[in-house]
Amino acid sequence: MITIPIVPARVTTALQVALVQIDDYGPWTVTPEPRRETDLQALQASLFADFATFVGRHDGYAFYGRFDNMVAVVNDLDPAVFARFQRQVRNRYPVTVSVGVGLAETPVEALGEASDRLQAAGSAQDGTRREILAAGTEASIETGPVTVGHFDVVDVTGSLTDRENAVDATLAIRRATLELATYLRAEHDSLAHFVGGDNIIAICPDLTPAAFDDAIEHVRAETGIELQVGIGRGPTAHDAGAAAKEALEQCRATGARIRESEQLPADD
Amino acid sequence: MITIPIVPARVTTALQVALVQIDDYGPWTVTPEPRRETDLQALQASLFADFATFVGRHDGYAFYGRFDNMVAVVNDLDPAVFARFQRQVRNRYPVTVSVGVGLAETPVEALGEASDRLQAAGSAQDGTRREILAAGTEASIETGPVTVGHFDVVDVTGSLTDRENAVDATLAIRRATLELATYLRAEHDSLAHFVGGDNIIAICPDLTPAAFDDAIEHVRAETGIELQVGIGRGPTAHDAGAAAKEALEQCRATGARIRESEQLPADD
Amino acid sequence: MITIPIVPARVTTALQVALVQIDDYGPWTVTPEPRRETDLQALQASLFADFATFVGRHDGYAFYGRFDNMVAVVNDLDPAVFARFQRQVRNRYPVTVSVGVGLAETPVEALGEASDRLQAAGSAQDGTRREILAAGTEASIETGPVTVGHFDVVDVTGSLTDRENAVDATLAIRRATLELATYLRAEHDSLAHFVGGDNIIAICPDLTPAAFDDAIEHVRAETGIELQVGIGRGPTAHDAGAAAKEALEQCRATGARIRESEQLPADD
Amino acid sequence: MITIPIVPARVTTALQVALVQIDDYGPWTVTPEPRRETDLQALQASLFADFATFVGRHDGYAFYGRFDNMVAVVNDLDPAVFARFQRQVRNRYPVTVSVGVGLAETPVEALGEASDRLQAAGSAQDGTRREILAAGTEASIETGPVTVGHFDVVDVTGSLTDRENAVDATLAIRRATLELATYLRAEHDSLAHFVGGDNIIAICPDLTPAAFDDAIEHVRAETGIELQVGIGRGPTAHDAGAAAKEALEQCRATGARIRESEQLPADD
Repeated sequence: MITIPIVPARVTTALQVALVQIDDYGPWTVTPEPRRETDLQALQASLFADFATFVGRHDGYAFYGRFDNMVAVVNDLDPAVFARFQRQVRNRYPVTVSVGVGLAETPVEALGEASDRLQAAGSAQDGTRREILAAGTEASIETGPVTVGHFDVVDVTGSLTDRENAVDATLAIRRATLELATYLRAEHDSLAHFVGGDNIIAICPDLTPAAFDDAIEHVRAETGIELQVGIGRGPTAHDAGAAAKEALEQCRATGARIRESEQLPADD
Repeated sequence: MITIPIVPARVTTALQVALVQIDDYGPWTVTPEPRRETDLQALQASLFADFATFVGRHDGYAFYGRFDNMVAVVNDLDPAVFARFQRQVRNRYPVTVSVGVGLAETPVEALGEASDRLQAAGSAQDGTRREILAAGTEASIETGPVTVGHFDVVDVTGSLTDRENAVDATLAIRRATLELATYLRAEHDSLAHFVGGDNIIAICPDLTPAAFDDAIEHVRAETGIELQVGIGRGPTAHDAGAAAKEALEQCRATGARIRESEQLPADD
Repeated sequence: MITIPIVPARVTTALQVALVQIDDYGPWTVTPEPRRETDLQALQASLFADFATFVGRHDGYAFYGRFDNMVAVVNDLDPAVFARFQRQVRNRYPVTVSVGVGLAETPVEALGEASDRLQAAGSAQDGTRREILAAGTEASIETGPVTVGHFDVVDVTGSLTDRENAVDATLAIRRATLELATYLRAEHDSLAHFVGGDNIIAICPDLTPAAFDDAIEHVRAETGIELQVGIGRGPTAHDAGAAAKEALEQCRATGARIRESEQLPADD
Repeated sequence: MITIPIVPARVTTALQVALVQIDDYGPWTVTPEPRRETDLQALQASLFADFATFVGRHDGYAFYGRFDNMVAVVNDLDPAVFARFQRQVRNRYPVTVSVGVGLAETPVEALGEASDRLQAAGSAQDGTRREILAAGTEASIETGPVTVGHFDVVDVTGSLTDRENAVDATLAIRRATLELATYLRAEHDSLAHFVGGDNIIAICPDLTPAAFDDAIEHVRAETGIELQVGIGRGPTAHDAGAAAKEALEQCRATGARIRESEQLPADD
């Protein structure tokens, strides 16, 4: 008798990504008449500060996205906990938020799922869609690990900040960011986002250093901007990102363009 | 008898632009070890919220720039008043800020001046450069008026938000922003900045509607994204911007791609 | 043979209370010279807002205390988690905080323990005492339940807000708060704190409604102010407090002076 | 013929005080059901932080009052400017505020006037009363100067913070505050408010040092707490208060119980 061993399907690890959308925000900003621009800027920034604090509490990473659409990588978080963030917003802001959560093998797929779920619940400008929390039932899928690439511009102070007009320095960094994000999205289903200064953070599936090298080369070819990158891996975005920051420090110290963290940094 | 008519020198109007830079921020973010990313995001966003509030108090417009380099258009403000913002930051944040102020005929020249003044006072990462307030002595130059173009994407909900993956929608808007900003900087010495959602605000010298039309056409040709724009003029960025918002509302209501405000909106 | 049954010692339930102290705050407020009062007010209020958010995330209750000494009832929280709050403060404020945690049968004993632990680690104005986290090793003591009394003034709008000068209304409520807090501290080892409007919240051991009635009577006799109280019980301050709020709503609806919640409210 | 000499009325100097009230706040906090207490604490504290920043911008002093009723001394401010604060709140919070402004010879009279004006516009819990700005027409009355007494507890660290349980230290300071505030209100029509730590600030008409001495003596007799006070005078609360702080520093340095500032401190 021949027995066929049942090989348990390899558990597919996955990333969990959340998309937070201000409900009916566009209409609100112009009702009853256009609201003062600096007030809107302050509202959005303050809401994002609270969001980053909430996400950081759960060892995730938060990106401001388009401010009315914020994104978080939250591997370690029960999606139901977002109800707490929704309550917090409702009790502190003049707006409410809906949240979609996706879980998939790549960051872009996961965000796509989150995005689909929100869209299925109604248009972003549907005045009656309020405080949706749309998550899946993939509880059996295990999350992690995530790979984070933390990029910055080689010698940014010497090459840009202290040399260029602030306008041109900003445009140069914006272009480098956009080319990097577009490339990583197309080639590796990854999310990349500007996070301040000359820093860009990419959330990736399990990419090799060579893949990061190609990305850096692509940006140099398209824009003339030279990036360096620290690579980290871990069960959560914070773990992976902290390792990536350590690795980037080594790039700065040694002149290496790519450095991969070999161990997790001590917890903070 | 020959009379020589005294032609009054045409008063050159000018824009006043401020560049606010966190002192020695890069080193601080990694000392003694890299700080938690979500804390940095929260810090930057909170600082910008306060900056927008401060600038709005003086009828200016604030842009987050690169977060460690924020920008404001502040026609109506004595540069010395920035010392109050510096004090406020020192007393509420773990960082300090330096401020450069420029006054020139175009936004890019003014920001260039602000930038030059800061650079003259020391490198952004010079640990001993703290709380510089570098303004000029052009007190006799009168400011204003400023022209604001407030752009957004035609039918963004139908064309992007509810149709595209949030990743691609964001990349599309980022590309439109970058092409617009690069074009306006090159052609008209103007500053354009993403301000949330699908909104882009440009601070310009006295441009005609035709020049805005060319800019929209340029973005469409480069990216396929169709923008519309409300144009406003006024002595301060807020005045001009509020008029631009009103005009943009008319674009939305009528389907016009460009609308210029004919009168100032009521004060708020 | 007579066997003496070994009665397991009744598990003593306990409350966990944290005392958060800004390190070396007094000297900081006047160095190098006295800082602007409204900046200090804004700093303290902003820090407390963050503290309340942090504590609420863990279903505790937060009180502003003296602002430089804030208090929280945090039954359900591993004291080590306060390291996250300390990190958040360090990365966002110009000050740091130390935390003492106590666990005891009554709120006052628990806060006393927290207070003792901080004092053992150094004076509040010892410039070298920074970011202490002083908790005990009582891990085996189970926490909860807690009893919360949520008081307010009967018909405050009619009796005070709309009738008295704002000065006198505030003084009256302050006096009622102080008499209540002093009485509950002396008689029942309880903490009572003003929380805004005409609301006072008391954290208590397992008190009977009759004990609350005596407290109300004491305040009436001393101040002429008539209070009503909703009483709730639960494993955390939030659970107990939410039940107390429901009960207070019933006081308002029915005219009862004391109402005890019979069930836990639905979770939010 | 008898002529009656027209004696010009001596210009009465006056203080301007504002009372800011959250509209319909009580009902909002329990609609549709009681809101989470820590969210309310965070909301109130955040609103007060913004209020303190706004008031500080105009060289006033802000007090949290009862949080839903905040108070400011704003000699140098056109009452119409409060419309900006109202707009800022409307655009950033889930609540709105009404403002009453009074101008009178003493702080209590001024606040009474502010209070009366708000009450005349409707009850604090009238759901339809929204964003009232009730100021007078006393434009011809000149404001200032104001006298500020900045009190604290003599050797608070040694006598209270490091010695007493935090509960008892806080109760002691609260009692000292209440006795001081009640005395100054009754004897000198002054406002006194706890501002954090062991600091109490009194806004007064033109009182002599002897009057402050009597107040300190009264508190000692009633509570056993020994206060010291710095006294400052100036056209705005900030000017007077900064001078008072300087004077209080001299108390701390010299052991004097009362010190009056002789000159204005340098502006910050």
